[in-house]
Amino acid sequence: MAGDTLNSMTDREAARKRILARYRDPALADRLSGGEWNKALDVMLSHRSVRHYLDEPVPETMLELIIAAAQSASTTSNLQAWSVIAVQDKDRKARLAVHAADQRHIHAAPLLLIFVADLARLRGLSDQRGYEGVALGYIEAFIFAIADAAFAAQNAAVAIESLGLGCCYIGAMRNNPQGVADELGLPDETMVVFGMTVGRPDPAIASDVKPRLPQGVVLHRERYTPPSPDLMADYEAHMHAFQAEQNMRNIAWTEQAATRVKDLAALTGRHVLTSFLKGKKFGLK
Amino acid sequence: MAGDTLNSMTDREAARKRILARYRDPALADRLSGGEWNKALDVMLSHRSVRHYLDEPVPETMLELIIAAAQSASTTSNLQAWSVIAVQDKDRKARLAVHAADQRHIHAAPLLLIFVADLARLRGLSDQRGYEGVALGYIEAFIFAIADAAFAAQNAAVAIESLGLGCCYIGAMRNNPQGVADELGLPDETMVVFGMTVGRPDPAIASDVKPRLPQGVVLHRERYTPPSPDLMADYEAHMHAFQAEQNMRNIAWTEQAATRVKDLAALTGRHVLTSFLKGKKFGLK
Repeated sequence: MAGDTLNSMTDREAARKRILARYRDPALADRLSGGEWNKALDVMLSHRSVRHYLDEPVPETMLELIIAAAQSASTTSNLQAWSVIAVQDKDRKARLAVHAADQRHIHAAPLLLIFVADLARLRGLSDQRGYEGVALGYIEAFIFAIADAAFAAQNAAVAIESLGLGCCYIGAMRNNPQGVADELGLPDETMVVFGMTVGRPDPAIASDVKPRLPQGVVLHRERYTPPSPDLMADYEAHMHAFQAEQNMRNIAWTEQAATRVKDLAALTGRHVLTSFLKGKKFGLK
Repeated sequence: MAGDTLNSMTDREAARKRILARYRDPALADRLSGGEWNKALDVMLSHRSVRHYLDEPVPETMLELIIAAAQSASTTSNLQAWSVIAVQDKDRKARLAVHAADQRHIHAAPLLLIFVADLARLRGLSDQRGYEGVALGYIEAFIFAIADAAFAAQNAAVAIESLGLGCCYIGAMRNNPQGVADELGLPDETMVVFGMTVGRPDPAIASDVKPRLPQGVVLHRERYTPPSPDLMADYEAHMHAFQAEQNMRNIAWTEQAATRVKDLAALTGRHVLTSFLKGKKFGLK
């Protein structure tokens, strides 16, 4: 099939390589490379964020395919409580970048997708029927709108990578959601959840697959169990090795994560999200 | 590759068929079937919720592959603020079903995955460092934990379907999150976001691909635009046709959607989510 990168490797070799990169656990890589493998798994396991793009537009039909994948994701009760804004205008992209820590890949990417938790469309339907739309005023509606936007965006990411393009989520779009809303004309009861830069990866500046926590930390059996100190120590070691390979600053992952949620400054402006949401008429009851 | 269902169709035929099923728009299907296609797109475009399963366990290595795909999804600043509980014990599954409208496919599925927004692990790291973890008390942290859980779950869903299995999200797990938390031992600063039933689809009871809103409703160009009444009318027509084909109750989608958010009863218990969250020490500031 088009875009298949597995041609030069057997399924077993590909599986082993992908699992090893993700977990740095040879026993797991051996165990999981004996069974099924396919292009979808290969694309997902190969994921890495891409922040350097070639100066080539994303073809219109590719954008439509990406959106078709996004819309094919599950959505709460088929309510489809999300929207996406495709921004290709360089000036608008530059203005949006300013709201998101002025990350240089927002400027550089040919396409910026802005994913929106959208209760406005449902509010419109509700108003047309003369209903009160009571449920829209509760935090439950906010939760499913965020989840719907995230399901769609993740399918978009998989589609993007399956097509040989790359992407990077931009959570910093929540630093100034009012600025983003003003720029894009987002109505009441909508909020930007994150952006996503999209483009053809610059092969000269390749990034590598980042290790994740051992499965035993994230996957619980039958009941929740606190993380094992041994597994957390394994992860520190894997992340140290990764940082060394990538010439990144060497810092313990546990320290990095704890610092990321340490204080008000760590919220980079997002400590006022609740008041933004109230201003946009999200009830959050 | 293993699990490839495209063998009997050309890429062009497969693309056309999948796009047509999703949008019922022959012009779009023609336009998008001339370019790239691959197994990942085919799996995503073929998605349908599966609620009838064969009585066969999900092999352990498949579960591990599914989790590897889930963990390969993006996560906010690599914080990995989610967990998943794999429930296979029939009695526990039955008790959890009771908290989620007693949906029969929860009983029937050999595997139930419970996706959790997990700030507890970060709280633990923060406490170990002697930090206050101030940011964890803000709605921003709640948002990224939900998004991380949803990114992971959506990759899991794609992996599941790529392996020939089927799944169904269970939003009703939010009907009684305290009951779910008690059953699974979920600590403070965690919340079930949704469940997901997993198993081999019963071929005797096949479901079809559900049409989604026209791209022009969900995809905005450069700025947000309210939905066009013509496109909304097209969707009503597609959903009516789908309902007739599936022998489902014939009801306008706009009415169905508006009713789903109409009143307190429509929240099926979820009107107390905020007080549950406060009880679980989510700050939501």
